[in-house]
Amino acid sequence: MDLANLQAAMRATYGDRDSSRGADSTFRWFTEEVGELARAIRTGDRANLELEFSDVAAWIASLANLLDVDLNEAVARYATGCPKCHRQPCACPI
Amino acid sequence: MDLANLQAAMRATYGDRDSSRGADSTFRWFTEEVGELARAIRTGDRANLELEFSDVAAWIASLANLLDVDLNEAVARYATGCPKCHRQPCACPI
Repeated sequence: MDLANLQAAMRATYGDRDSSRGADSTFRWFTEEVGELARAIRTGDRANLELEFSDVAAWIASLANLLDVDLNEAVARYATGCPKCHRQPCACPI
Repeated sequence: MDLANLQAAMRATYGDRDSSRGADSTFRWFTEEVGELARAIRTGDRANLELEFSDVAAWIASLANLLDVDLNEAVARYATGCPKCHRQPCACPI
């Protein structure tokens, strides 16, 4: 799924709720999902792990919608290598 | 950018570093970026906000690579509506 499609899907499904709730509350939901992702990594439950990754991605898309950020444009800086050293693989000092 | 392309770009750019560092350390980096996103939301700096969204997305892709999760497959559950109530817009009780 293209990031633009993910944002469009989240807008169509949750846009009104996200707007009513606002950015700070949506950020709180997002961090709740980050915690659930941490738990899924700890327990090693594969099915749950994929689900939690999807929830984190979905909530990032919702947050980006609320804050008028186009994720495709944002991530373009990573398309061809490291945005800092411009190399692929990255050659930045570790 | 398709999520598969984002994962491929991150794998090509940072895959070796991510593997050496491991999932827990990568998760810690990811949460560092989440904190930077929170700060960008607070300060309202638009350019920095887009950059921090891109970093959060990038680190989620790195983490998904390390844990063998295909983000495209994972987010498919959101493609046509709410994965819980299967409606678009969502009709779940708030």
